[in-house]
Amino acid sequence: MDLKRYVRDVPDFPEPGVLFRDITPLLQNAEAFQYAVQKLSERFQGRNLDAVVGIESRGFLFAAPLAINLGLPLVPVRKPGKLPAAHMTAEYALEYGTSQLDIHSDALGKDAAVVIVDDLIATGGTAVAAAKLVELLGARVHAFAFLVELAGLGGRERLRDYEVVSLLRYE
Amino acid sequence: MDLKRYVRDVPDFPEPGVLFRDITPLLQNAEAFQYAVQKLSERFQGRNLDAVVGIESRGFLFAAPLAINLGLPLVPVRKPGKLPAAHMTAEYALEYGTSQLDIHSDALGKDAAVVIVDDLIATGGTAVAAAKLVELLGARVHAFAFLVELAGLGGRERLRDYEVVSLLRYE
Repeated sequence: MDLKRYVRDVPDFPEPGVLFRDITPLLQNAEAFQYAVQKLSERFQGRNLDAVVGIESRGFLFAAPLAINLGLPLVPVRKPGKLPAAHMTAEYALEYGTSQLDIHSDALGKDAAVVIVDDLIATGGTAVAAAKLVELLGARVHAFAFLVELAGLGGRERLRDYEVVSLLRYE
Repeated sequence: MDLKRYVRDVPDFPEPGVLFRDITPLLQNAEAFQYAVQKLSERFQGRNLDAVVGIESRGFLFAAPLAINLGLPLVPVRKPGKLPAAHMTAEYALEYGTSQLDIHSDALGKDAAVVIVDDLIATGGTAVAAAKLVELLGARVHAFAFLVELAGLGGRERLRDYEVVSLLRYE
């Protein structure tokens, strides 16, 4: 199945000059969404993983069914102020300024092996921050999984110490 | 399975005097998460639905696997500024001021029957806004599904024109 048929290009979003890869048509096609989740599930079956880590909020769309399919715990990594209990924080750079991600301190056991899931990788800043959080808890990043990879933006190079899986690659 | 065992009470979050029902322990227990998704799936199997509508962002955690299980399209309802293509907007009241939710204008066909999914219903303001969006597109709310219902806050009464399913009820 050619999943790119279900990604819509929206020019000048969120700002002029940016071509946004909109995955909502893929979500809205039941077969395409099931196919994407199935493909990710196949890649990580039998890997001895301990948890799926999902990055808020579009990462949740793939992390949740992947965790269900693999029978694994789901650990949300969230934007600031969202997690109610004791948590760790990692900052990452945006084009202007910084943002941060949080993880509950009791979310992962020591040496737990996880796959970190997001819908898309661009520069990799969010992914690096999520890896930092996993490692702050003493757990281990087994791999990253993305639906879409914007290959021209260098994200894979920033994650070169890890296995990176993406289903759809744009140059 | 007693799902309440996997909900953590966090006092004074997000502000003093509020008791927050934290579902992350449920997500982080693979059996409990699978059980919750399975229970929701059973409730909506064979209903002749056309789509699952998930409310950003914790609603995505249950809407996504529900859509996969039922073989239905997943339509995200998102916070302002997130949807890249033409969309409709609905406002809803917060304790102080208002917020809004968006839906892509092409997300649902006329007369489509949907189930709207969120993790939790409190006063029901978000749910009412999501229903308004579905109806603005000419589609129809078949039911609402929540993991947690805070029954003392009147949400179910505000949704009295609809079927409301919740797996976990707190008085």
